[in-house]
Amino acid sequence: MPTYAADLAAVRAAAERVRGVVHRTPVLTSETIDRLAGRAVFFKCENLQKTGAFKYRGATNAVRKLTDAEAARGVVTHSSGNHAQALALAARVRGIPAYIVMPRTAPAVKKAAVEGYGGIVTVCEPTLADRERTANEIAARTGAVLIPPFDHPDVIAGQGTAALELLEDVPDLDAVVAPVGGGGLVSGFCAAAKGLNPACRVFAAEPLGADDAARSKAAGEWQPQTAPNSIADGLLTSLGTLTWPFVRDQVERVVVVTEEQIRQAMRLVWERMKLVIEPSAGVGVAAVLSDEFRALAGVRKVGVVLCGGNVSLDKLYW
Amino acid sequence: MPTYAADLAAVRAAAERVRGVVHRTPVLTSETIDRLAGRAVFFKCENLQKTGAFKYRGATNAVRKLTDAEAARGVVTHSSGNHAQALALAARVRGIPAYIVMPRTAPAVKKAAVEGYGGIVTVCEPTLADRERTANEIAARTGAVLIPPFDHPDVIAGQGTAALELLEDVPDLDAVVAPVGGGGLVSGFCAAAKGLNPACRVFAAEPLGADDAARSKAAGEWQPQTAPNSIADGLLTSLGTLTWPFVRDQVERVVVVTEEQIRQAMRLVWERMKLVIEPSAGVGVAAVLSDEFRALAGVRKVGVVLCGGNVSLDKLYW
Repeated sequence: MPTYAADLAAVRAAAERVRGVVHRTPVLTSETIDRLAGRAVFFKCENLQKTGAFKYRGATNAVRKLTDAEAARGVVTHSSGNHAQALALAARVRGIPAYIVMPRTAPAVKKAAVEGYGGIVTVCEPTLADRERTANEIAARTGAVLIPPFDHPDVIAGQGTAALELLEDVPDLDAVVAPVGGGGLVSGFCAAAKGLNPACRVFAAEPLGADDAARSKAAGEWQPQTAPNSIADGLLTSLGTLTWPFVRDQVERVVVVTEEQIRQAMRLVWERMKLVIEPSAGVGVAAVLSDEFRALAGVRKVGVVLCGGNVSLDKLYW
Repeated sequence: MPTYAADLAAVRAAAERVRGVVHRTPVLTSETIDRLAGRAVFFKCENLQKTGAFKYRGATNAVRKLTDAEAARGVVTHSSGNHAQALALAARVRGIPAYIVMPRTAPAVKKAAVEGYGGIVTVCEPTLADRERTANEIAARTGAVLIPPFDHPDVIAGQGTAALELLEDVPDLDAVVAPVGGGGLVSGFCAAAKGLNPACRVFAAEPLGADDAARSKAAGEWQPQTAPNSIADGLLTSLGTLTWPFVRDQVERVVVVTEEQIRQAMRLVWERMKLVIEPSAGVGVAAVLSDEFRALAGVRKVGVVLCGGNVSLDKLYW
């Protein structure tokens, strides 16, 4: 029997560790969306989480779990997305440095956001090789601990705390749905939901333009994501070695949606639920509204995580 | 001693009446806004209320308070704003007709929204005289009960339930802030907040382009709003005969803000709190961020109602 990077006990320990630091986000509903989905949908609003995304949970869990000696040297990661901001704030809350490696092609607004949370930004070339080289160099020089964005047990357990809260608020969910990019969030959802109730079904939602999880699951073996193309910029990476086993064994199905479905779902949530969500969060909503998901039997109540709300408000997406 | 149209007992009775029908909306916070405001700010998110605005509270209270005999004949109002949608849904939930008189100049999307909630729309000329004439004619013909948008004791008491919930969640608020148009919301806030804690200070927030409440308070007597000009389209009316006494006697001050302040506050809330709010809600936020409000002594914790989130998403406001 395979072992997994996190289980319910790890998620519960994470929940204790992050209590009072991360927001307990509300679970909201919409009669309009219930009608469109053909069932009762419960939205876990991680767009209302600090730093605007669930990533703050995993980063906080990882940072708080460090010993004082480890923590004193700081943390390091390479990311231009929500994990970068999350780690910067989690480190600042503990009073330790966060070294964030960002490609020189990252938008100035993202660099400014990380610096706004106190992160120390190092710019590198926009290749995975140079990002890793730069991060490793910083780790070697400073002794900072590398906290990757998803492929880490403490990060996965931290993300699972969102599922724990959701199932505390709505204990009789038949299923939960989480968007999948690197897989940290959906893995945490597996650990929490399956641990609390093995009958609770876990679904992943993925953009057609970055469908490595769907292809991996169909092939029965890990497939890389190459040349991703989607507005859901949080979901462009490949699954990791720790997250793939969750998707392989515990996720029932990966629901794939188009860019048009993502845009429509985003607008629906902005318009009817009055929540600003980013495209990656629209992917989960689009999955629940898809014909494929609507056709599923036995799902009376479903929980969906609105994973983030970090968008540019200089333009609209539709 | 003057009497007022609603008091704490009326608000508590309204809360019993609307329980389980209106959403208990979350109270959210933002460290960024706390920093900008110079104090702790608690946002009562009525943009997340059913129909997208607090108006559903007052409409529901008024509709549920009707006797079965009164209710059977339906309700009628003239409004092209959030009250129209709120009354239509409140009536549908009770299973009675709602006759909504709208000027022929009202946007098609607003007419469609009212009809989407089951309202029976009658179009009239865009003058107050023709709106009142048409509504009275429908009332005479059908026996429907007129439920006005703000100048009614049951509507005021219903709006006060938002303040009751806010003060249950954060009992030690030093002050509350509500936008003022017709004055139903701020009157309900006075009834609830002053009733619970006479030391709790109540402030109104108003656009400079529709500042009848500020002018009335300065003059010590009711002044009409003529030729209003503001993007805060929910705040363009004059105070009513029932709401003016609250503003005169119980509101400490009316804070007036410019269109630019409203736009900036709106964008701030969309961007940092991930909440879609309408311009009228931006008025309350702008007031709390104003130099005038920041200079107030003795306000450590302030509650602000985000009154609604009904905006067109075809364009941005900035």
